[in-house]
Amino acid sequence: MGEAFPSLGRKLRLGLVGGGPGSMIGPVHRLAATFDGRFELVAGVLSSSPERARLAAKALGLAGYASLEEMLAGERLDAVAVMTPNDRHFAACRTALDAGLHVICDKPLTNALTEARTLAALAEEKRLVVCLTHVYAAYPMIRQARAMVAAGAVGALRAVQVEYLQAGMSAAVEQREQTPKLRWKLDARRSGPSLVLGDIGTHAHHLASFVAGRPVRRLAADLGAVVPGRSVDDYAAMLLRFEGDVRGTLFCSQALAGTENQITLRVFGESGHLEWTHERPNHLKFALQGKAVQTLARGDADLLPAAARLIRIARGHPEGYFEAFANLYRDAAEAIASRLTGQPADPLALDFPTAADGVAGLAFVEAAVASRAAGGGWVDVPAG
Amino acid sequence: MGEAFPSLGRKLRLGLVGGGPGSMIGPVHRLAATFDGRFELVAGVLSSSPERARLAAKALGLAGYASLEEMLAGERLDAVAVMTPNDRHFAACRTALDAGLHVICDKPLTNALTEARTLAALAEEKRLVVCLTHVYAAYPMIRQARAMVAAGAVGALRAVQVEYLQAGMSAAVEQREQTPKLRWKLDARRSGPSLVLGDIGTHAHHLASFVAGRPVRRLAADLGAVVPGRSVDDYAAMLLRFEGDVRGTLFCSQALAGTENQITLRVFGESGHLEWTHERPNHLKFALQGKAVQTLARGDADLLPAAARLIRIARGHPEGYFEAFANLYRDAAEAIASRLTGQPADPLALDFPTAADGVAGLAFVEAAVASRAAGGGWVDVPAG
Amino acid sequence: MGEAFPSLGRKLRLGLVGGGPGSMIGPVHRLAATFDGRFELVAGVLSSSPERARLAAKALGLAGYASLEEMLAGERLDAVAVMTPNDRHFAACRTALDAGLHVICDKPLTNALTEARTLAALAEEKRLVVCLTHVYAAYPMIRQARAMVAAGAVGALRAVQVEYLQAGMSAAVEQREQTPKLRWKLDARRSGPSLVLGDIGTHAHHLASFVAGRPVRRLAADLGAVVPGRSVDDYAAMLLRFEGDVRGTLFCSQALAGTENQITLRVFGESGHLEWTHERPNHLKFALQGKAVQTLARGDADLLPAAARLIRIARGHPEGYFEAFANLYRDAAEAIASRLTGQPADPLALDFPTAADGVAGLAFVEAAVASRAAGGGWVDVPAG
Amino acid sequence: MGEAFPSLGRKLRLGLVGGGPGSMIGPVHRLAATFDGRFELVAGVLSSSPERARLAAKALGLAGYASLEEMLAGERLDAVAVMTPNDRHFAACRTALDAGLHVICDKPLTNALTEARTLAALAEEKRLVVCLTHVYAAYPMIRQARAMVAAGAVGALRAVQVEYLQAGMSAAVEQREQTPKLRWKLDARRSGPSLVLGDIGTHAHHLASFVAGRPVRRLAADLGAVVPGRSVDDYAAMLLRFEGDVRGTLFCSQALAGTENQITLRVFGESGHLEWTHERPNHLKFALQGKAVQTLARGDADLLPAAARLIRIARGHPEGYFEAFANLYRDAAEAIASRLTGQPADPLALDFPTAADGVAGLAFVEAAVASRAAGGGWVDVPAG
Repeated sequence: MGEAFPSLGRKLRLGLVGGGPGSMIGPVHRLAATFDGRFELVAGVLSSSPERARLAAKALGLAGYASLEEMLAGERLDAVAVMTPNDRHFAACRTALDAGLHVICDKPLTNALTEARTLAALAEEKRLVVCLTHVYAAYPMIRQARAMVAAGAVGALRAVQVEYLQAGMSAAVEQREQTPKLRWKLDARRSGPSLVLGDIGTHAHHLASFVAGRPVRRLAADLGAVVPGRSVDDYAAMLLRFEGDVRGTLFCSQALAGTENQITLRVFGESGHLEWTHERPNHLKFALQGKAVQTLARGDADLLPAAARLIRIARGHPEGYFEAFANLYRDAAEAIASRLTGQPADPLALDFPTAADGVAGLAFVEAAVASRAAGGGWVDVPAG
Repeated sequence: MGEAFPSLGRKLRLGLVGGGPGSMIGPVHRLAATFDGRFELVAGVLSSSPERARLAAKALGLAGYASLEEMLAGERLDAVAVMTPNDRHFAACRTALDAGLHVICDKPLTNALTEARTLAALAEEKRLVVCLTHVYAAYPMIRQARAMVAAGAVGALRAVQVEYLQAGMSAAVEQREQTPKLRWKLDARRSGPSLVLGDIGTHAHHLASFVAGRPVRRLAADLGAVVPGRSVDDYAAMLLRFEGDVRGTLFCSQALAGTENQITLRVFGESGHLEWTHERPNHLKFALQGKAVQTLARGDADLLPAAARLIRIARGHPEGYFEAFANLYRDAAEAIASRLTGQPADPLALDFPTAADGVAGLAFVEAAVASRAAGGGWVDVPAG
Repeated sequence: MGEAFPSLGRKLRLGLVGGGPGSMIGPVHRLAATFDGRFELVAGVLSSSPERARLAAKALGLAGYASLEEMLAGERLDAVAVMTPNDRHFAACRTALDAGLHVICDKPLTNALTEARTLAALAEEKRLVVCLTHVYAAYPMIRQARAMVAAGAVGALRAVQVEYLQAGMSAAVEQREQTPKLRWKLDARRSGPSLVLGDIGTHAHHLASFVAGRPVRRLAADLGAVVPGRSVDDYAAMLLRFEGDVRGTLFCSQALAGTENQITLRVFGESGHLEWTHERPNHLKFALQGKAVQTLARGDADLLPAAARLIRIARGHPEGYFEAFANLYRDAAEAIASRLTGQPADPLALDFPTAADGVAGLAFVEAAVASRAAGGGWVDVPAG
Repeated sequence: MGEAFPSLGRKLRLGLVGGGPGSMIGPVHRLAATFDGRFELVAGVLSSSPERARLAAKALGLAGYASLEEMLAGERLDAVAVMTPNDRHFAACRTALDAGLHVICDKPLTNALTEARTLAALAEEKRLVVCLTHVYAAYPMIRQARAMVAAGAVGALRAVQVEYLQAGMSAAVEQREQTPKLRWKLDARRSGPSLVLGDIGTHAHHLASFVAGRPVRRLAADLGAVVPGRSVDDYAAMLLRFEGDVRGTLFCSQALAGTENQITLRVFGESGHLEWTHERPNHLKFALQGKAVQTLARGDADLLPAAARLIRIARGHPEGYFEAFANLYRDAAEAIASRLTGQPADPLALDFPTAADGVAGLAFVEAAVASRAAGGGWVDVPAG
């Protein structure tokens, strides 16, 4: 693990944008960035309020700035990690890329497809790394599933199902005193064209496409709110067609009382299927027709290289969400170090979500919104 | 259990139509009918071939007949159990009802909605019992779930999900030497307008409606075959609207390699959800938002009466498919005995699927087929 | 299934001893006996009170008798099923065997080893069938496990663990108004030398020996009551040596609040292990070192004949406790029919627990009691 | 989380002893130490070979030393983390404590009870922190279980069961080319009086005592090797008496093919029981007699403070082994900072395993060995 890492000889210098006090994902990014010793946290713009930004940075031992521009002026950074509210991703990423910095960005990449395309083109043009933190794709057993599908372990695909269930919006939170986080989420101008799709639907969409090894081409969406009186989306059920006319479904909601961040993916092929669930992320069900069901475990001797390279500790020692997030940062570090040194990266390290996945995610969101506008009928997903 | 059973003073005399050699469901019906000692098997028309019918009856110790008409002429029966290929349900049920006999019929009730309506009207008019063997609705924990939903245990409904996964059609069975059973299934004139919906989709539809306590009013269907070259349906994914504008999804397929008759139902309400899976039928997950998840078990002290009355043995002693099937026959017996004696039946015994459920099932099938014809758009489900 | 059944041409005539009103196990025996149509219930001595015996028999449609002797005098029976309180098993079985009748007997066979040996010798001498209802050994996946161990699927045995957990005695039931069943259980003269061992320890002991394919030769026991003030045993933990110096443990208790008749068996060998749990009886875990864990399912295509012959319905349709109990009666019927006709039985049908297993069970109980008397030290289990 | 942390104003300076190339646990300690930003890794004695020690330190960016004495002379450290082979724990810990440094030590604390007592006395005398890395006790749901037992959630204790299953020694590893790690393990002079007990038995013993809230007072042990020809122990099964005459069992083995670091703990009380398993560490089963079984989840709203303080991220985002290990280091840091500053620590932060637990562990090991010597009979566990 890591032997082939391009020899930069130092840690990568990372600046943070967002993720300050009250953020759930901020601490995750910071831990993941330092988990494997590839990044050092240097500076941050941790709040849109200058005073809060300064205090938050101090509490973390970072140089604090009131804006990304100031931070870029004041620090020599290699990369910027963006974890602001969704509506500010675009500007922050563009500024960072314009400045020649690599980017790690929380999903969704942007709130609009055109913006995502702009960022992808910019990254391409400048040959900069963009790592989009679709963390679920970084669990070792998801990589195993993707590699198995690619290797034909279940035969020609027949159907793909993905679901993502949350409970955070099951109560009528609109009527509570709102946290800053909730406030921007409930404001559609900030959270994007469909809250549930931006928050968790793009995760589900990416996961399914990633493991199936093919994009979603068409869909019909039942999109809306199940909590009475809600003005943002909290529910989406979709019928899908993946490339090659493979059928599928996607289901996500943030308003399902009693659930706990449950994600389940199933990929059915002509000879069997794979099933993974976030509740038990270190295992993968592999059921071949006519055979005993197998439960593959992270750490099994014969995992495929794409999964084996991510194993941090022996079978039977559970890894979780933080380790998966750290996998993304480690691979992003390898890609960045490769760009900086000109040395090749491990090809398997380059399988993290990028700006292109951000574009695909926004295309998916816009197609779903278009399907709703069309009375729920089938629509094409715009090409990347 | 059974103390209140109307005192008929004898077993009910049952004639069988179908379910002979090679049938999977025939032995289940016979066992279920006799499980609780309420029926005696008297005679049967066990094959469409007179010679095979005679031999099969002999092997089972029954009087054998070549046709239902002959059996009705030759025996004094109380009821007839119909388990033929789907296309013969209608004629058999009509003949039996016309003759004043009660009917237990395997699902789907008929292959066409108009036929189902005819049978329902006939049963109504003649005040005869029709019990449709949607067996999954007879598991105690499904009855518990239905009663809990009705009592408001999860609050106002938000979403209902049901899925039914099978593997039997995952191979290209069309190219094998075909069993008689497979032959009629692959012949759409016999198996009905949509094989997968008749075989398992109607089960899923009934289960969801039964537990949710409300019918499906609109749907959009992705209906077809995932096995290349197949001319009957083996896959259905649907977006649903239940009465009261409750959202839902239904997924079923007989072509999912590696699955094993997996049924999962989830009912989400404003305060929590219920989840039941056929793989673990003696338990029911009950998750209230903000509380520890509860796993209710068949046999728990505080189950609701609708479930408690079906418990045959203490908690921790698994009951299964046969016991559920027998529950249907026992309740049908109680309803029939009530009709024969004029004594009241236990109201809880009358909650089995009837001809009205058969009508609802066919309305659902026809709506799904109509949605397909309309390019997958939303259609209304015809009223019962 | 059943094709090779010796052609008796009629059902076996069964008389019942015990199992009347208030009995949990009585209805199970009756259902199991008739489940496969091999026995007809003819008569019964259903209570030690003549009047209650008469009424109970009438309610079941049986000829009622006040004593076994009267029943034997009054009926032409093939076999007797004994399900009285433990202390009356010996007399009932001896009387039946003396009369030349085959016997199905609930466990434990007797309350004393010498009595068990007497019955075994008597059955041997008279060439009569004794079927001891260690029901857990009749689950198909337990038969699969036994056959796999015998075939070397896990290699040379290293360790065997069995546990049986119940909650029925977790409360201070001594201080309640007692049911008749509880009264005889709490009376050590009736329930035998160790309540917990007679009730469930012998099940666990049999199950472990049966699947491991070898008897327990030595043990050290921690035997007693965990509920304060209790005079009968409700807890047993043991260290074991099976034949061939294979280590093991046995744990059982009836006083573990919150459990629900939980039985788990694990057999470890040099190359892997098997695990079965009663909560999920249709599956069997098979873990080979260095390989993905396999979950074998009842109904899998490649089960061994010893299991495959017991499958009643396709994979994914759960079977449970009643079906397992019925398996015992069906096999007992085949053995009895073989004796009656002189025709050979299917050898696989003869793998049910017999008087010899009853002897082994009582030897185990007496060894455990002897270990307690010796301060918990190791003792030899008496030979059969 | 952490607000009350004594304000040291800098990171604690940590030196490492052991854990160099080939070590499984070395990387875990290093990650755990830095996970929460409370320690900085300064220097290390990473191998007993001076050259390898130097290279290993360089690879990690640490100052490298050939001996602990040299490191203590060359660096100003706050604490030392010891993760050498077992036989060197004592000398390293004593040297560090003598030098006035706090210690984090891998288990077992020492190879002999007298040594453990010496260290405990020394730490007491010098008022230094010793944190023993019984990592399983640092999972949030284990803390929840301990707090629930203490609060009487299951009532008076009736029985405690713990098991720890591993497969690493299931093959005849003695006949392979041996890694350095395996070599010292197979050498009883280095790995201690009982390999299996030092490696995993002390973990199981600590976990059971910790959650039950009481020490083991007596035991009878079946201790030995199940792999033929093995000279070190790989198997232990024990009957236990905890303080207050509470019964229990402990089972551990490193030679159980097909297992994967499986730990299960069950605590039974008069009104219910708790069950935790390492395979699913974010959940805790809580079964009250007569109630639906509850599954508590890390992140539930109403967890007790002892568990809630360890939650790093919302319910449904799995935490694992690394997070548990980091919990130990974070609490050790708080205790050390409290000693250094004189400021009080959060009392809940002081519930990590200490030298006293190390003494209890060695007392347990020596009792088990004494029981074996006494033919497996019951022996008292020496007092701390």
